[in-house]
Amino acid sequence: MNSEKHIAIVGAGLVGSLLSIYLAKRGYKISVFERRDDMRKSTGYQGRSINLALSNRGIRALEEVGLAEELKQQAIPMHGRMIHDLQGNTNFQLYGKEGQFINSISRSGLNRVLITEAEKHNVQFYFEKRVTHIDFDQTEITFQDSSKNKFDLIIGSDGAFSSVRLAMQMTDRFDFSQDYIDHGYKELHIPAGLNGEFKLEKNALHIWPRESFMLIALPNPDGSFTLTLFFPFKGEQSFEHLSSNESVNEFFKTTFPDAYALMPNLLEEFFTNPVSSLVTVKCFPWAKNKTLLIGDAAHAIVPFYGQGMNAGFEDCRKLNDLLDIQKDNWEFVLNLFQAEQKPNADAIAQLALDNFIEMRDLVNDADFILRKKIESKLHELFPNKWIPLYSMVTFYESIPYSTAYQIGQKQKKIMETVLESSSIAENWKSLNFFEIVSQLN
Amino acid sequence: MNSEKHIAIVGAGLVGSLLSIYLAKRGYKISVFERRDDMRKSTGYQGRSINLALSNRGIRALEEVGLAEELKQQAIPMHGRMIHDLQGNTNFQLYGKEGQFINSISRSGLNRVLITEAEKHNVQFYFEKRVTHIDFDQTEITFQDSSKNKFDLIIGSDGAFSSVRLAMQMTDRFDFSQDYIDHGYKELHIPAGLNGEFKLEKNALHIWPRESFMLIALPNPDGSFTLTLFFPFKGEQSFEHLSSNESVNEFFKTTFPDAYALMPNLLEEFFTNPVSSLVTVKCFPWAKNKTLLIGDAAHAIVPFYGQGMNAGFEDCRKLNDLLDIQKDNWEFVLNLFQAEQKPNADAIAQLALDNFIEMRDLVNDADFILRKKIESKLHELFPNKWIPLYSMVTFYESIPYSTAYQIGQKQKKIMETVLESSSIAENWKSLNFFEIVSQLN
Repeated sequence: MNSEKHIAIVGAGLVGSLLSIYLAKRGYKISVFERRDDMRKSTGYQGRSINLALSNRGIRALEEVGLAEELKQQAIPMHGRMIHDLQGNTNFQLYGKEGQFINSISRSGLNRVLITEAEKHNVQFYFEKRVTHIDFDQTEITFQDSSKNKFDLIIGSDGAFSSVRLAMQMTDRFDFSQDYIDHGYKELHIPAGLNGEFKLEKNALHIWPRESFMLIALPNPDGSFTLTLFFPFKGEQSFEHLSSNESVNEFFKTTFPDAYALMPNLLEEFFTNPVSSLVTVKCFPWAKNKTLLIGDAAHAIVPFYGQGMNAGFEDCRKLNDLLDIQKDNWEFVLNLFQAEQKPNADAIAQLALDNFIEMRDLVNDADFILRKKIESKLHELFPNKWIPLYSMVTFYESIPYSTAYQIGQKQKKIMETVLESSSIAENWKSLNFFEIVSQLN
Repeated sequence: MNSEKHIAIVGAGLVGSLLSIYLAKRGYKISVFERRDDMRKSTGYQGRSINLALSNRGIRALEEVGLAEELKQQAIPMHGRMIHDLQGNTNFQLYGKEGQFINSISRSGLNRVLITEAEKHNVQFYFEKRVTHIDFDQTEITFQDSSKNKFDLIIGSDGAFSSVRLAMQMTDRFDFSQDYIDHGYKELHIPAGLNGEFKLEKNALHIWPRESFMLIALPNPDGSFTLTLFFPFKGEQSFEHLSSNESVNEFFKTTFPDAYALMPNLLEEFFTNPVSSLVTVKCFPWAKNKTLLIGDAAHAIVPFYGQGMNAGFEDCRKLNDLLDIQKDNWEFVLNLFQAEQKPNADAIAQLALDNFIEMRDLVNDADFILRKKIESKLHELFPNKWIPLYSMVTFYESIPYSTAYQIGQKQKKIMETVLESSSIAENWKSLNFFEIVSQLN
């Protein structure tokens, strides 16, 4: 019966492709329109990051469509942060408990698997089809070639610079914001060793925190690492001042000496790869008549919590759950979906901004490290009552982002008081942990 | 020498027309492009409010271009707020001191005067020319008829839904937000008496404050009043529930009995006139290469402080001042202008949102009225040290909005403490006013 309904999905990225599988499995006729060409046929740089951190919210959705096992094979577990100091010394901080980790996965590899799986469910993909206009009353898309098509439903999963959202912005009473941070990013590379060996610890997310900026590295299956330098666009230490071979070499040699030693192609990459900007996009409503925004199109966030894709995948799962509960009554579902997910999107947007400060600065801070230790102990003693914020966001997909955010705010207040106790660094093991955890109620 | 420079102004509204006069007087060649037809030839409703409150910031700019005296003739002074209660009783609250008042003026009348004056300075107006694209590197505009023109400078004064700003939004690292409030507005009318007499007090801005919504009235020179109902779009008491003749009559009769008695055409107007939405627009930067946003295009605000036009006119004056100081070095001027005016735009945006609550609710509040009395006394005793917030914004064009906002926040804190004193309503005259005012330092 659902097959009578024809749904257009705009954007064949990670979220659009996953959603097409969910909806095809419900019996809908699905057409996906993508402005780029078929990524399976091209190898070129698509203007997006090369690898991503897949964690529990994303995995849960991949499990539901039966792809989790296949994709875990392609992923590299990262059990914690490896912090690199100015001398090249390292310090490893576990993300969670035994068995809790995040996964470095290739964006394009994951996307290919999703598109190929979708085609098995009779999803039709149309590439090089760019949306130029949407008639929200008629649920009609106009494409760049002036062709028009009507659908029963349109879902915009076309990313941070969504053309579906741009069309909504032109309608009355659509709240919208786009906010850029002062930092941009540039991707660089540490190649594998001659025999494909990893030149840094494989199962970690590497961070070179330098207070106002940072370098990070994620492992790839071929033994290489993708590095990302997050650095101000302007100012004394900024991209605008790294314009000569000498300045780039000098900067990397003194600032990231151990990474520098592993980057034979630094200069070529630095002057070839683009500097990309980082934006937070918020909007509301997400649904207008029979058109819905989802994923980055509805809520693009900065990458510092590694949750952009995971949040988008969670959207797909939540939408599917609501369709189950509401028996595919889309009018109800669209309203419930945006009411339920908007607070979660706002929460993870803020958490992602906050986490940039944590990653580039606090991970080196004695108070921060002590706090992590105490919280870890609290979690060990009261595993269901005190769950550290990072764990709630990353490993507990049953806790909504907005709940995690609120609990995190409470935890922060409690821990601030705890850390003010005298000689806390020496005496923290004799804290009254029960008293601390009971403050959460 | 400036005449060698050709400046395009997009939008022939109030700000664009005024700016064209300022810049033509500096010797530039000015072309103004307006998407509507020439308002001097048409009488139709243009989708904007009929009259506006002109106050000191706006008047100051009109003085500079030599139009203040002519326009004051067309304006009606409003010395204070006339508050109408549910029984039709009224209570008058002065806006400031003797000689301080705001002015009800016709939007279209003012706009016509400005366009006609601009033409005297050889400004060229091109109507029905809609901007579809801007090339910021080439300073080139594409119009809806596919014609293209290059300029030395482009200034977008094309309002809250600016097409120049939309083009900027598509460029990298442009921060932007549009936020609608839950209320819309509908304009209504109280006609003049048979002999052109005013049916309500002429020299006042009338308010029917009803806590969650309000009706206001501004006088017109012909003896009529333009009424504006600010009312929620949705909910128990909202536009969506006023859908029948009976419900509208009943609502006005019980909620605004004295106004209702003066509105013979209520039903026709109510069901003919549109409900318009209310938006706050913020963005940054305002300048991209040689293209600048100004007025509502850069900072649209809600109308509750009566400052939208005044803020736009102040922009024109500040820009002209900077051109004087920097000897028409536009590169400097564009940067200085946005750095100086952005905090002022943000401040008046917030003040305008806050003032909606004051107008619709607080003006009836005993504490609020007492606070006004005490502040009035403070201003009388210390005229240069304690200037009430409304006066700073409305009557003191030398105080930037952002300064007014900051001082206003301080005053609010001080007054909150003062109002907590015991039996303050009876004893306020024996307060230590000197001690109060000295807290401002």
